[in-house]
Amino acid sequence: MLLEPFTINGMRLANRVVLTAMVTRLSGEDGHVNKDIRERYVRFAKGEPGLIVVEAMAVHEAKSGPLLRIGYDLFLPGLTDLRKAIHDAGPVHVIPQIIHFLKIARSGWRQKVSDLSREEIRGIVTAYAAAAGRARSAGYDGVELHMAHAYTLSSFLSLRNTRTDEYGRSLENRMRLPTEVIAAVRSEIGEEFPLGIRFDAEECIKDGYTLLDSRQMALRMARAGADYLSLSAGGKFEDAIHKPGDPLYPYTGYSGDRCMPAAAYPDGANTYLATGVKSFLLSQGWETPVVTTGKIRSPEDAEAILRRGDADLIGMARALLADPDWTLKVREGRREKIVRCIYGNVCKNLDENFKKVRCVLWPKGALQAPVSLDSIAPTWPSGRSLVATEETGRVHLFWKAAADSDGVYGYEILRSENGEAEIHLTTVKGCSYNDYDVVAGVTYTYRVRAYDLAGNRSEESDPAKAILSYPEAARARMERGRPATHGRRP
Amino acid sequence: MLLEPFTINGMRLANRVVLTAMVTRLSGEDGHVNKDIRERYVRFAKGEPGLIVVEAMAVHEAKSGPLLRIGYDLFLPGLTDLRKAIHDAGPVHVIPQIIHFLKIARSGWRQKVSDLSREEIRGIVTAYAAAAGRARSAGYDGVELHMAHAYTLSSFLSLRNTRTDEYGRSLENRMRLPTEVIAAVRSEIGEEFPLGIRFDAEECIKDGYTLLDSRQMALRMARAGADYLSLSAGGKFEDAIHKPGDPLYPYTGYSGDRCMPAAAYPDGANTYLATGVKSFLLSQGWETPVVTTGKIRSPEDAEAILRRGDADLIGMARALLADPDWTLKVREGRREKIVRCIYGNVCKNLDENFKKVRCVLWPKGALQAPVSLDSIAPTWPSGRSLVATEETGRVHLFWKAAADSDGVYGYEILRSENGEAEIHLTTVKGCSYNDYDVVAGVTYTYRVRAYDLAGNRSEESDPAKAILSYPEAARARMERGRPATHGRRP
Repeated sequence: MLLEPFTINGMRLANRVVLTAMVTRLSGEDGHVNKDIRERYVRFAKGEPGLIVVEAMAVHEAKSGPLLRIGYDLFLPGLTDLRKAIHDAGPVHVIPQIIHFLKIARSGWRQKVSDLSREEIRGIVTAYAAAAGRARSAGYDGVELHMAHAYTLSSFLSLRNTRTDEYGRSLENRMRLPTEVIAAVRSEIGEEFPLGIRFDAEECIKDGYTLLDSRQMALRMARAGADYLSLSAGGKFEDAIHKPGDPLYPYTGYSGDRCMPAAAYPDGANTYLATGVKSFLLSQGWETPVVTTGKIRSPEDAEAILRRGDADLIGMARALLADPDWTLKVREGRREKIVRCIYGNVCKNLDENFKKVRCVLWPKGALQAPVSLDSIAPTWPSGRSLVATEETGRVHLFWKAAADSDGVYGYEILRSENGEAEIHLTTVKGCSYNDYDVVAGVTYTYRVRAYDLAGNRSEESDPAKAILSYPEAARARMERGRPATHGRRP
Repeated sequence: MLLEPFTINGMRLANRVVLTAMVTRLSGEDGHVNKDIRERYVRFAKGEPGLIVVEAMAVHEAKSGPLLRIGYDLFLPGLTDLRKAIHDAGPVHVIPQIIHFLKIARSGWRQKVSDLSREEIRGIVTAYAAAAGRARSAGYDGVELHMAHAYTLSSFLSLRNTRTDEYGRSLENRMRLPTEVIAAVRSEIGEEFPLGIRFDAEECIKDGYTLLDSRQMALRMARAGADYLSLSAGGKFEDAIHKPGDPLYPYTGYSGDRCMPAAAYPDGANTYLATGVKSFLLSQGWETPVVTTGKIRSPEDAEAILRRGDADLIGMARALLADPDWTLKVREGRREKIVRCIYGNVCKNLDENFKKVRCVLWPKGALQAPVSLDSIAPTWPSGRSLVATEETGRVHLFWKAAADSDGVYGYEILRSENGEAEIHLTTVKGCSYNDYDVVAGVTYTYRVRAYDLAGNRSEESDPAKAILSYPEAARARMERGRPATHGRRP
C-alpha cells in the first residue's frame, strides 16, 4: 500500500510517503526563498515522496529568525520559483505549510492567546486566508494550516487557553478560531484546492489535552472542510527550557521529545494517536485521510500501519533528511541502500540553537544530502575484524577503517541478542563505539558494515560476541534461572 | 477473572483488585502508626480488595514530613498493630511499601544519585534488607520495594542517572543497585516471603526512559527474585514545579499528570505499559505477575484488561479512596451503588500541599470514607426537573435539591450524545454544573441522580437536552454534512 497512489481532493499522490514540514533555517531573515532552500527541496523531490510539505512560512509580518514568508505578494515570485523547481525535480506534489505565531522575547516573555484583542483575532483569520490564496496563486498543489505545537492556532486549541470569552476555556470555544480560519481559507481557495491541517493529537504537557479532545478537533476540522489531517504531538512553549538571553524555544522540553521521538523511544511512538483519531472519524462517518508521524523508519512498519488502517499516509521528516532517496530506494528494491536515521536528534539540536539544519550523517560540511551514482561498495582493505570488549556495564567495539572509491560515509552497527534477528543498532562515522544499551546475561553478536555516499554496503565484518556478567550480589540466582517458587501459580 | 483468586508466591489473594500504595499524610512526623492511619486502612480492608499495599514507609532515618517509618525496631509494635487491625477487618492480604529517598531542601536543592558515596550506596542495600525483615517480623504478607517516581532506586534506574562508575549511565549499571537491593532483601526474607516491586514503566520526562528500557528492567527484577511487578509512570523531580519556600515536590509537573491521570486522560491511560512489559516477560519465559494502574475505574474495563492478558492484577488508588467498598459492591452485584471517582485530583492536590489526603466526594470534614447501612435512596421532593441552558460554548445545568434520610452525598451527572449510551460525566455536591466538554452540532441529553452515603441512587431526573450552534463563519458548511469533494477517494 505504501507505494500505491492516493488521492486527496483531486490531488493524486504517487505514493503514501509524506515529507512533513521540517524547519531548515536555510532562509534569510528577509523571508525570501534562496538558493539553499531551493536546493534542499529539490533534493527531497528527487527522492520522490508522494507529497512534500514545505517548511512553515509566516502569514503575517512578525519579527523572527530565518523563516520563509507568504504574508505579502512580494514573496510570490520566490515561492513560485521554489514550487516550479520542486515540480521540475520529480513526480511529487508540493504544499506549503502556513503559520501564524505570537511574539516572544529574549527575556523569556511570550505573548499569550489571552492577550489578543478581537481585532487581532480577526487579523489572524484574514492573514491565513490571504496566504492560502497566495499558495494557490504560486501554483502549489494545496496548502497546509499549522495548528500544531507552540503556535497561535494550537495555543487556541490548547487546554491551557485561558481566554474567558467565546474563544477560550470550553472545547467548543477553543475550536472557534481554528474553525473560522478553515472557513475563511476554504472560501478563499475554493472547494477544489486541497487543504490540510497539522495539529497536535496530544499536547504532552501538564494540564494539556489528550485524544479525548483531539479526536473531536479532528472531526471538527473534517466537517469544516479539511482534506487531510496530519497529526503531531507536543512541541509546546509551556515546558520549554529558557536559555537566558535567547527567546523561549519550543521542543526543548519533554513535549519536544514527544514531538520528535529520539533513540530512547520505541518506533512508531505516536502511532496510537493516529489509531485513536482515525477510528473516531470513521465511527462518525468521515473518511478524511490521516497522516501519522513519529519515528516511523522502516518500510515494513509503514506498510503495517497502512494495512491496519491506523493511518492513510506515512509522514517522515528526519528519516528523509538522512536519506531523501528513501522512497525511491524502497520502490526500486534497493532498500538495503537506505541511509538510516539514527534518531540522535542532532538536527533538532541545530534548530534549537538557531543553526542551519543538516543531518549528522551527512559528509562533514555538507549543506545537503549527498548524491552519488557510485555502485561499488566499500571494502575492508585490512581485514574484516571487529573487536568487542566487555567493560563494566557496556560493550566497547572497534574495527579498522574501510575504503571506498567514492568515500566511506559511515559504519552501521548491527546487533543480535541470543542469536535472534539482527537489528540496526546505530551508525557512526568513526571506527569505535560504546554500546551502553546492554544487559547482563545476554549474548550480543555484533557486526559492522561500511557504506558509501550512495548507500552501498560493504560485506559485514566478522562477528564479535560479548556477554556481560550479572551483578555479583545476585549472580547465583540469576544464572540458575527461574526458581520454582516464582511466577504465576493460580 | 477480576473476582477470582490469584496466588503470588504462596499468598492466595481473594481477588485481583490491588489497592496500590497511596500517600495519606495521616501519620505524625514521628513516623509511628496512629489512629487515623489505622482507621484509613481498616476502612479499605472492609471493602475487601485482594491486596492492600500500605503507603510508603522509610527504610532509613531521614528528615521528612509526615511519613511512616520502618527503619528501626522501635516502629515494629505500631506496624504490627496496623497489620493486625487490617487482617481483622477483612479477608485481605497486606504488604507495606518500603522506600528510600534522597535529601531535598526548601531552597529547591535536591541530592542526586551522583552525590552518593560507595558507602552510602551500601547503606541503602542494608537498610532495605533490614526493613524487609521487619515487615516480615510484623506479620505482613509480603513486602513491596519502591523503585518508582522520584525516589532513590528510581533515580538509579533513570536515564538521567549521570554516575560515571558502575552504578550509572549504561542500562546494566543503572540496574545494578536495584539488583543488589533485591538480592539482599531476598536473602533477608527467604524464598517463601512475597516480594513485589513498584517501578516506572516510563519516566515521562525529557530524556527519560521508555518501555525499551523498562521491559528489560522488568525482566531483571523477575530474574533477581521479584514475585510481582507493579507498574507506575512518571512522578519525577526533574519536571517538578518549585514553589519558593517549599521543598521540591514530585507529581507537580507533567510526569505527575501521567502518574495519576486526571479527567483529561482516557481511561486506562497507562495500560499500554503493562501490555509492553507483560508481553516481553512472556516472550522471555517469565510469568511474573504484573499489576497495572492508571485511571482504571470500571469493572468492565478491569475485566477486559485481565482477559486480554495485558496484566494479571488491577491496581487502583483514587477509585478506592472514593469508594473503599468498590470490590465488595462489584462482588455483591451492587455495582450501581459504587461512589465513582471523578479524577479531579483534589486528593493529589492535598498531598502536594502537604495536607491530609481525603476525597473531595466525602462529606465535608470527614477524614475517612463514610459507612452507611442505609438502603433507602434519596428522593426528589420538589420534582425531577433538570434545566439545561445553552451558553456560548458550554451547557449550564441546574436542578432542585434531593432529600435523603441519611444525607445526600452528591449528584451524578449522566450524559448521552446523539442518543448513544449514557456515560457518567462527573459528580458534584451542589445543584448546578457547567459542562465545558461539549462541541457544537451534538445533541446532549443530560440526566441527574442523587445518591446517599451508601451509594443508593435516586430516580433519574427528567432528561434535559442541549445543542450548541456551530461557529457562525462555518455554520452553513457544517450543517450540510460532508461535501462531495472531501474524504478519501483513491
